[in-house]
Amino acid sequence: MSEHMSTPEPVVEHPDRIPGYTYGTTEAATSPLSLEDLERLKTVVWLTPDDEEALREAGEILADQADDMVTAYRARLGDLPFMRPYSGHPDGTPNPEYGAASKPRFDRFIIDACTRPLDQDWLNYQHEIGLRHTRAKKNKTDRADSLDHIPMRYLLGFTAVVIATAREYLAAKGASPEQVDRMHAAFTKSVMLHVTVWTRPYVDAASW
Amino acid sequence: MSEHMSTPEPVVEHPDRIPGYTYGTTEAATSPLSLEDLERLKTVVWLTPDDEEALREAGEILADQADDMVTAYRARLGDLPFMRPYSGHPDGTPNPEYGAASKPRFDRFIIDACTRPLDQDWLNYQHEIGLRHTRAKKNKTDRADSLDHIPMRYLLGFTAVVIATAREYLAAKGASPEQVDRMHAAFTKSVMLHVTVWTRPYVDAASW
Repeated sequence: MSEHMSTPEPVVEHPDRIPGYTYGTTEAATSPLSLEDLERLKTVVWLTPDDEEALREAGEILADQADDMVTAYRARLGDLPFMRPYSGHPDGTPNPEYGAASKPRFDRFIIDACTRPLDQDWLNYQHEIGLRHTRAKKNKTDRADSLDHIPMRYLLGFTAVVIATAREYLAAKGASPEQVDRMHAAFTKSVMLHVTVWTRPYVDAASW
Repeated sequence: MSEHMSTPEPVVEHPDRIPGYTYGTTEAATSPLSLEDLERLKTVVWLTPDDEEALREAGEILADQADDMVTAYRARLGDLPFMRPYSGHPDGTPNPEYGAASKPRFDRFIIDACTRPLDQDWLNYQHEIGLRHTRAKKNKTDRADSLDHIPMRYLLGFTAVVIATAREYLAAKGASPEQVDRMHAAFTKSVMLHVTVWTRPYVDAASW
């Protein structure tokens, strides 16, 4: 989209201007996880200091592509009739207001996944995102008329698309193949870390 | 390992010789999922006919590396003290018998993820694998003394390592970068499809 804009404004909205984006505020949920839980998860996905450096570099490359990435995800999901009721109205018809309201937050996730420190604010907002996929909080932020729960299997399954398609965006600015490999591995780990934490509201604490 | 063997036998055991590998038999669990459920999941991970062709090619490249891949996963997990009680004894001390018993099945998974048709036998055995990660069936196949449940967050988190490290193995036999990209994307989708189905026993049907 950016090439059609008349001003060179960044495509991804500044966080302060995104309705419902409560990162770092008391409006976000409180995570049931501790920083030690997070540290363990970080070692399980094997996010190293080099990965964290590669993520910062990925963040610069993806910043003005995040909106296109999310547009592409949604185009794909829109091709699947059984997925439409989760982003559209419950009968599967389009819900452009909901789509427009939630998109800046989804765009922002791409940037945040590359740039945000893994701290208590991170834990809290990831828990908030998880809740917003489930009956606990889906549709509430935007007062949307849409199905009230995204099955966990679709959340996990679609992660494959986010990870696999990321490579072309990471390669789009002329980084060397080795650098693209490095950023892609780091992005894969970061996305899996995020999505894993988002599953917490789906599963009882003793099994999760 | 293969370069130290005196005969050119494949490193990964033939399925018929793997204890507890019940793929395609009546001993495997019966999946609660339908073939239509599977078809939907396949479209959500976006596994295309071209991906399925790329997976066959990946299977040929990974066949004699699968054992090394699993060795590497286990080395990493062994570096994390809090992960040791799931593959070792409950107190975290090594359990080489359990490791030896389960390894041929884990190796076989790498090959199966590239080669098996997505049919009822696939559904059933993936459900069996899922159950074997949880209190329902963990340790039972090998009568192992080990913790009886792998938290879902660690199963999901470690998937990042499986996906990210696959690239070097896919590239190890001289395929072109484009071909490695193609196989890596297909492998990513296949692994996420498998792991997603493995989570079914962790979550109630209405949320999953």
